[in-house]
Amino acid sequence: KKVMILPGDGIGPEIVEQACRVLAAVNEKFNLGLEFVEELIGGSSIDVHGEPLTDAAVERARSCDAILLGAVGGPKWDTIDRSIRPERGLLKIRSQLGLYANLRPALLYPQLVEASSLKPEVVSGLDILIVRELTGGIYFGEPRGIRTLENGEREGYNTYKYSESEIERIGRTAFEMARKRHKKVCSVDKANVLEATILWREVMDRLAPEYPDVELSHMYVDNAAMQLVRAPKQFDVLVTGNMFGDILSDAAAMLTGSIGMLPSASLNEQGQGMYEPCHGSAPDIAGQGIANPLATILSASMMLRYSLGMTDAADVIEAAVGKVLDQGLRTADIHTAGNEKVGTQQMGDAVLQAL
Amino acid sequence: KKVMILPGDGIGPEIVEQACRVLAAVNEKFNLGLEFVEELIGGSSIDVHGEPLTDAAVERARSCDAILLGAVGGPKWDTIDRSIRPERGLLKIRSQLGLYANLRPALLYPQLVEASSLKPEVVSGLDILIVRELTGGIYFGEPRGIRTLENGEREGYNTYKYSESEIERIGRTAFEMARKRHKKVCSVDKANVLEATILWREVMDRLAPEYPDVELSHMYVDNAAMQLVRAPKQFDVLVTGNMFGDILSDAAAMLTGSIGMLPSASLNEQGQGMYEPCHGSAPDIAGQGIANPLATILSASMMLRYSLGMTDAADVIEAAVGKVLDQGLRTADIHTAGNEKVGTQQMGDAVLQAL
Ligand SMILES: CC(C)[C@H](C(=O)O)[C@@H](O)C(=O)O
Ligand SMILES: CC(C)[C@H](C(=O)O)[C@@H](O)C(=O)O
Repeated sequence: KKVMILPGDGIGPEIVEQACRVLAAVNEKFNLGLEFVEELIGGSSIDVHGEPLTDAAVERARSCDAILLGAVGGPKWDTIDRSIRPERGLLKIRSQLGLYANLRPALLYPQLVEASSLKPEVVSGLDILIVRELTGGIYFGEPRGIRTLENGEREGYNTYKYSESEIERIGRTAFEMARKRHKKVCSVDKANVLEATILWREVMDRLAPEYPDVELSHMYVDNAAMQLVRAPKQFDVLVTGNMFGDILSDAAAMLTGSIGMLPSASLNEQGQGMYEPCHGSAPDIAGQGIANPLATILSASMMLRYSLGMTDAADVIEAAVGKVLDQGLRTADIHTAGNEKVGTQQMGDAVLQAL
Repeated sequence: KKVMILPGDGIGPEIVEQACRVLAAVNEKFNLGLEFVEELIGGSSIDVHGEPLTDAAVERARSCDAILLGAVGGPKWDTIDRSIRPERGLLKIRSQLGLYANLRPALLYPQLVEASSLKPEVVSGLDILIVRELTGGIYFGEPRGIRTLENGEREGYNTYKYSESEIERIGRTAFEMARKRHKKVCSVDKANVLEATILWREVMDRLAPEYPDVELSHMYVDNAAMQLVRAPKQFDVLVTGNMFGDILSDAAAMLTGSIGMLPSASLNEQGQGMYEPCHGSAPDIAGQGIANPLATILSASMMLRYSLGMTDAADVIEAAVGKVLDQGLRTADIHTAGNEKVGTQQMGDAVLQAL
């Protein structure tokens, strides 16, 4: 089995390094036969190739069984032409590989309840899965651009659209995920205003009878944002479009206070997947050796579990992460009084030790 | 001066009734010479006229100096044709009167810090103003609809667009509001993905030099949703488009834990305004006499202040609301142990008494 490693920018290379050490260890321990190849993405690819992701890199990614990504972007590339910004590399790989299902768990580790800005009773035990559609909606809708109107002023425009088959595909993912969890799907839309989401709601309702064991509800996106703040534990699986999912998944992740702990997966119809931490490239702390590698290590374990079918190795990694938290080791982002503050490398060492 | 009263649906009539009692009291006390006219909106208009807002009602509203609205919508009208749903009445009056500037304060009353789901240190002293563009963006963009594609499946689509003049207008409102506050504007967009918001960011940057006393920053909408949860006190004025504003203002309001306390204003270029509570029509508790009338009472005082120039009367109402909170009176939505739970009418009585 071949795994592509895309370290990316900012803290990407540092955190991916630790995840690779962990992967190498389980590879040996369980005799998994994993092979690794590496490619550039984002700013680091712009610096070398003049574009954020080469077609050759995409082709190589296509031939791999799974992809592990660090993070992309940084101020260094903020002023270059928008068509070749680092983020474009991310959007390109999502789109080219058809990674339509973005799974973003918002899970509160009991050891980290203090790190949340919410009251412990509101978030303790929190375990939400956001299923975000990742290759459609307003992110990719055409026509788009900036044009000059008849009166001489300019107008920026984008198109928000979803077809029945796109909605159905992500809807099924959500229902199937809910089956493995607490059997509740809440579909988030703005059907009181947007036609694109009226169709969304209709298709979700049409799918529901095929999953009689799962309870489907609908919520407007503004209300969902409120309910996430007010009483997030009411949710099991939340399913929504690309743009709403971008916003709600970040809000949900932040409820835990430990976004440095949260992995994510982006899957295509063949089950091939790209795995990455929920957080960004954090250019402000890049190169300082203080970033939290656990979200990336947990992304690697998610990869073993969902795309490579290596459940035992995944279990062992997750148990090791639990162990280091129990030991009181904390990187700066999740550090609270009474615990031991460690750096990126030390955290990696501790996980390796605990394996 | 003429004020139009639009009680609307659900708890609308109950809470508007209390606000009208308060307005009548200050009208007499300060000899304001206010006149009131009433119209139907939302479901209550559908029931009588077959549409959520008649053209005649719009014309009457146009001739008034300000409008006080309760709330619209409810399950009774959830299944009727979408073109005449209660929400359409709201969108129609916003659009017809050109109420482009929606001001939504998220303010935490010191007496209510316990009601928040966030830790007291994270939210105490919170005072954010969200400036949401209200008559453009994806809410009103054409083309829109549901069409059948060549392959036979259907597709829902909407158009997100902003012209330079629309952006400039709401940008100026934000800068001017910031001048009266803490002199910081954070403009929220998704300029790393959406062209419509690339132009948004450009126009905000172009305006900034005209307001050298105000600090402008930019933030992506996903990050803004996170930062609102993580450290909301970093914000003063947030300015954004219609859809992002809908989501973020509800999240921000909920940070206070007391959305039943928050008024809002929607202004047009002539300074004419519509005032309404941030919360919805709460059909689940309608008719029970337990809804919190304070957001509507505070909307009335905002109206006196911003559209009618009756500052003294506004001051007196706000002081009275502070007094009843100090007395420990709480409706169910903001009730915590040790305080006295009261109903809608009792809360109205207490404010009148405190005037
Ligand atoms: C970097 C950006 C294009 C991306 C997105 O908006 O999808 C990011 O915010 C994410 O959520 O992965
Ligand atoms: C009822 C609905 C159309 C409305 C909106 O989305 O603008 C409401 O959510 C609001 O924020 O006033």
